[in-house]
Amino acid sequence: MMQVAERAGVSTATVARVLKAKGYVSDEARARVEAAVKAIGYRPNAMARGLRQRRSFTIGHMLDAIIVNPFFVNVAHWAEEEALEHGYKTFLFNHNGDGERERIGIERFIERRVDAVLFTNAIATENVRLLAAAGIPALQLERSKTPAAPAIRVDNRVGALEAMRHLVEQGHRRIAFVGGDPDLIGRGATAGPTVEEDRLEAYRSGLAAAGLSPDPALMRLGRYYSLEAGGTSSEGYRHAKSLLGLEKRPTAIFATCDILAAGALQAVYEAGLRVPDDISVIGFDDTIAANLTPQLTTVAQPMEDLGRIGFRAVLAAIESGEFPELPVLPSRLVLRRSTASIAR
Amino acid sequence: MMQVAERAGVSTATVARVLKAKGYVSDEARARVEAAVKAIGYRPNAMARGLRQRRSFTIGHMLDAIIVNPFFVNVAHWAEEEALEHGYKTFLFNHNGDGERERIGIERFIERRVDAVLFTNAIATENVRLLAAAGIPALQLERSKTPAAPAIRVDNRVGALEAMRHLVEQGHRRIAFVGGDPDLIGRGATAGPTVEEDRLEAYRSGLAAAGLSPDPALMRLGRYYSLEAGGTSSEGYRHAKSLLGLEKRPTAIFATCDILAAGALQAVYEAGLRVPDDISVIGFDDTIAANLTPQLTTVAQPMEDLGRIGFRAVLAAIESGEFPELPVLPSRLVLRRSTASIAR
Repeated sequence: MMQVAERAGVSTATVARVLKAKGYVSDEARARVEAAVKAIGYRPNAMARGLRQRRSFTIGHMLDAIIVNPFFVNVAHWAEEEALEHGYKTFLFNHNGDGERERIGIERFIERRVDAVLFTNAIATENVRLLAAAGIPALQLERSKTPAAPAIRVDNRVGALEAMRHLVEQGHRRIAFVGGDPDLIGRGATAGPTVEEDRLEAYRSGLAAAGLSPDPALMRLGRYYSLEAGGTSSEGYRHAKSLLGLEKRPTAIFATCDILAAGALQAVYEAGLRVPDDISVIGFDDTIAANLTPQLTTVAQPMEDLGRIGFRAVLAAIESGEFPELPVLPSRLVLRRSTASIAR
Repeated sequence: MMQVAERAGVSTATVARVLKAKGYVSDEARARVEAAVKAIGYRPNAMARGLRQRRSFTIGHMLDAIIVNPFFVNVAHWAEEEALEHGYKTFLFNHNGDGERERIGIERFIERRVDAVLFTNAIATENVRLLAAAGIPALQLERSKTPAAPAIRVDNRVGALEAMRHLVEQGHRRIAFVGGDPDLIGRGATAGPTVEEDRLEAYRSGLAAAGLSPDPALMRLGRYYSLEAGGTSSEGYRHAKSLLGLEKRPTAIFATCDILAAGALQAVYEAGLRVPDDISVIGFDDTIAANLTPQLTTVAQPMEDLGRIGFRAVLAAIESGEFPELPVLPSRLVLRRSTASIAR
């Protein structure tokens, strides 16, 4: 608009009045503006519109990673679908678990004047605070890692308890747990149980409900996958291989990530055993589960709801300045072909 | 800047001269601009900078889908990494195979004034032409679907021939082909062999090199996966199940997508056979291959190079107005655990 004003020799306010057909403009000024618009090929664009309305109709979505665990890209996909339906676009940024990179991404979001930011998941409170300082609403999806932004969390317990009940009903008593180590996987700066603590607690509760006590030999805690190692199933493979080497090996493995479960399936196969005939396996997330051999019974996370409800919540915050009441979304067991009643 | 100019009662050109500390401005005008900047809390932002420099430092990346086949998100990831290293951000958009949605995405890219657009993959020539009309360089990655933009293609033949040679060397003679049907998977508007034709031709050449002729009973063509059916391994499962039911079943299956291969592994498992003891399986892409059971030998696509070299090519086009010479990138065989020498 500045270029048009300069060429026409009028103020930008005059240009704006002509372009919006609003307010008094002399015939002469109007003619000069119209000639300048034509000469320059000026066309109001989305960036300029964003500046005028003080909205960019863009939100930032900070992810752990778009590759490795499809959980993140699934949540991002559904947030984007919902955003598109409301005329918004999302900018994805991946911090890859690196707090410095998260800060760079957030600064980029602020520079681009995003209207809000979603985190799946956040890392550092001081980074998230940069958004509050810039007046940009932020919302965490799945995990609450910082008190600096509200969160839509997942009830991990409900699906995990269903999984345990299912195994117990099939006669399993020696049920191994392969999952995230609460001490290794950052809790962030929030109080209350983490995702890892919830899953572990549901495992213990599920055993207790069947009159069983947890056997430390059957519990393997660690990382879901190592980003450095290319993020594949090697962690689950390693844990399961060690479990299968026990004198009294488990008859079922509850692995709290599909990628961990994928590694468990590989170890069982290598040992010459069959799933579910010799051993049952349950995963978590419902990402790659349907592509595994055999198709994996798993606890599904509500990825579509996280994305869609998450976007609608930040949209409300953009429009009204306040977040609506944020739900806790349930997880649920999806039965496929990797569980069966115990052979013996 | 317009707001500052209005408040200070000067032209935007004067505001620009003050902010850039460039050109003559009277002391009085400078003081008024500085006061207005302070009063308004004006801060030049990325959008405004983009307008000034006529660059948004953003490129659009049109993908088939961010979920289902991780091929697309891998290429997107590496293009984004390269973009970040050059101070650029990428906007992802998924057309989900729908030409109308591709058009909407392209219009959105134009509105946001992206500096260039990558396609993995394009659909409709008339959509891609919208970019040329807007003066925005466009580049196709992996597939050339339209003459409206240049392409960085993958040499599918080199990896596929390696795969065939590997199977033949292991003694396989009854090698099935499960792959994309050239008649079903759009060739788009370009001449020359498509990805599907290249893979099929490499299969035939591989057989011919071993003195074998293709057996139509062992060739199954179709879609890689059905987006409507949730995009999982059901297509490969169906083909492999039918192949295993043949009186003289194949001793090896070359499936030209890891998701097809995942279905083949499921069918073999269900039939009570073992991979690679009873039957060898090779995939294509190297996306989910390392998470499958057993870990899949596959023809890897150069996803990192597609993304990185692709971004650098559009950057050259943005900066110089011309694309550099575009390479054809090789595919290559990655050996894992799903192939072995023939048992009999």
